[in-house]
Amino acid sequence: MIRIPLDVMQDVLGRTLAQVGFEEERAFRCASIFVENSAVGVSSHGLNRFPQFVDFVRRGIVDPTAAISCVVRLGAWEQWDGHLGPGPLNAFDATQRAMALARQHGIGCVGLKQTNHWMRGGYYGWMAAEAGLALMAWTNTTPNMPPWGARDCRLGNNPLVLAVPRTSGPVVLDMAMSQFSYGRLDNTLREGRALPVPGGYDANGQLTTDPGDILRSQRVLPIGFWKGAGLSLLLDSWAALVSGGDATCRIGRREPESGVSQVYIAVDVARIGGEETVEGVMAAIVADLHAAQAGEGDAGVRYPGERVRRMRRESAAKGVPVDEAIWEQVRAGLQDR
Amino acid sequence: MIRIPLDVMQDVLGRTLAQVGFEEERAFRCASIFVENSAVGVSSHGLNRFPQFVDFVRRGIVDPTAAISCVVRLGAWEQWDGHLGPGPLNAFDATQRAMALARQHGIGCVGLKQTNHWMRGGYYGWMAAEAGLALMAWTNTTPNMPPWGARDCRLGNNPLVLAVPRTSGPVVLDMAMSQFSYGRLDNTLREGRALPVPGGYDANGQLTTDPGDILRSQRVLPIGFWKGAGLSLLLDSWAALVSGGDATCRIGRREPESGVSQVYIAVDVARIGGEETVEGVMAAIVADLHAAQAGEGDAGVRYPGERVRRMRRESAAKGVPVDEAIWEQVRAGLQDR
Repeated sequence: MIRIPLDVMQDVLGRTLAQVGFEEERAFRCASIFVENSAVGVSSHGLNRFPQFVDFVRRGIVDPTAAISCVVRLGAWEQWDGHLGPGPLNAFDATQRAMALARQHGIGCVGLKQTNHWMRGGYYGWMAAEAGLALMAWTNTTPNMPPWGARDCRLGNNPLVLAVPRTSGPVVLDMAMSQFSYGRLDNTLREGRALPVPGGYDANGQLTTDPGDILRSQRVLPIGFWKGAGLSLLLDSWAALVSGGDATCRIGRREPESGVSQVYIAVDVARIGGEETVEGVMAAIVADLHAAQAGEGDAGVRYPGERVRRMRRESAAKGVPVDEAIWEQVRAGLQDR
Repeated sequence: MIRIPLDVMQDVLGRTLAQVGFEEERAFRCASIFVENSAVGVSSHGLNRFPQFVDFVRRGIVDPTAAISCVVRLGAWEQWDGHLGPGPLNAFDATQRAMALARQHGIGCVGLKQTNHWMRGGYYGWMAAEAGLALMAWTNTTPNMPPWGARDCRLGNNPLVLAVPRTSGPVVLDMAMSQFSYGRLDNTLREGRALPVPGGYDANGQLTTDPGDILRSQRVLPIGFWKGAGLSLLLDSWAALVSGGDATCRIGRREPESGVSQVYIAVDVARIGGEETVEGVMAAIVADLHAAQAGEGDAGVRYPGERVRRMRRESAAKGVPVDEAIWEQVRAGLQDR
């Protein structure tokens, strides 16, 4: 692990995207999303994913020139088409549109079809929360998780983001419906460790903490067993209906994953009435959480997103932590051209 | 277990509510929600909960004469006050208002503060889905679940409902953020059985399937460990901000639970554009799910809510299954007066 200055990383990634067909402003905006994801510690959807993203652009799976366009306006709810453009830019634009609708109608909803992987969903939660809005957003995915009681993957892990603003640090949850992401399984396997709790089934249908067994069986465990499987199905149904796009069962016919469906719901909570402010409500919730009595061997209780600001500051001061081999690969890709 | 005709049950429950101060139409509408919940197999939030509900009305915790009123209109998002009225009637009215807003704006959102326990949240999901709308709704609760890494209950189990319409049977998920509801723990204990998967911690901080150990420690397990704990916190934050009402930490200061906060978000998906209909999308999703290969010892795969219509028909034909002792208690309460 080495550290690379933010601006150096931004420059290399941005120029790489410009070389593969992104218009300049879009190249550097898209690069900044990858940089930020690495800067806050989610390199699996930051630098580590960048080579594959560039490969998808080169292969025509992601169209670097496509931007989202409105299909139908229904008031506070709109359907947009992502035209198989870059997932991070499409998600960025859809979040901004949902925020604008929320400022106009109190709540705003964008259903986005035919888009691509948004990388780290939490990015868009932070974006809305730092602008003072609450955001709920999710994406469907290719089938990568079995329904409850089944062997074969029919459900997506459908990451869900929920964010609320708070001046001293937004609260942002970004979670897939599987107990562990495939990125986490890969990393744990590479480090030769076991998962902290069972994360799926081995070849004999037994729950296991061995990431290798789970990657081989492809039977990852939904959060809460039947509950996460049900939630995945409902998020997929909503995503398809609200966006007018493909459900997981149809996305699974394409390889690799493309053309996913997403939902963005923003609420302009700063317009809240009464004597309570957003700040006051969130201060009370966070203070109560922090007052919890730590369990056996636990260091204390954190809210989702609590470490993000500190990590971002650390990355700004000391450089973004990167895997040296992947960084060299990305730099070499740029010099090649 | 005996079976009681729907109309007999409706009559006894409705007259009981009329005797404790409900206006007649409201008494029978509220009773019908309890009857329906028992009729579809959720007696824990149907007949079995009715004696406590009546007790709460008698003790002034639930005001039988209070109805929801609008606090502020922000376009497609409105805040309403439940005035500590009957939770099921308040939820019924809030769902109808969210549906009306959705028909007007595409999406509609009602934040409802100072309301009471809605009993079975799935009821309102069915209500919206049978009218052709998608609904997402949740409630916060009194603290009854520890944050991840903590011993003491600071989070609610905050049941979440997601529903989508489908002519041959809506898909409706109704799930608490705890792996098992307290009702399920009670029932499993009464039946002298173990839980199918770990549901919480014993006095020594070890995961257990023994419902008695969990009820004693009060340390129920969130779905997906840290994930369900995070989701609970975010649902509570949204509920407080969107309704302008109390968060779980403040509800915990009152005993028994009252004055909870709820969110209702409806989308008028029947207005969906393109060549796809709601019916077509949902048919493809359900067909793909049903085509899954069953796992070891599993009977097959069902979608959330799949058994509800059959149970409702069975209850209509043969009577609602009830616990005889509880039924006698409810009947005696009526004859007393």
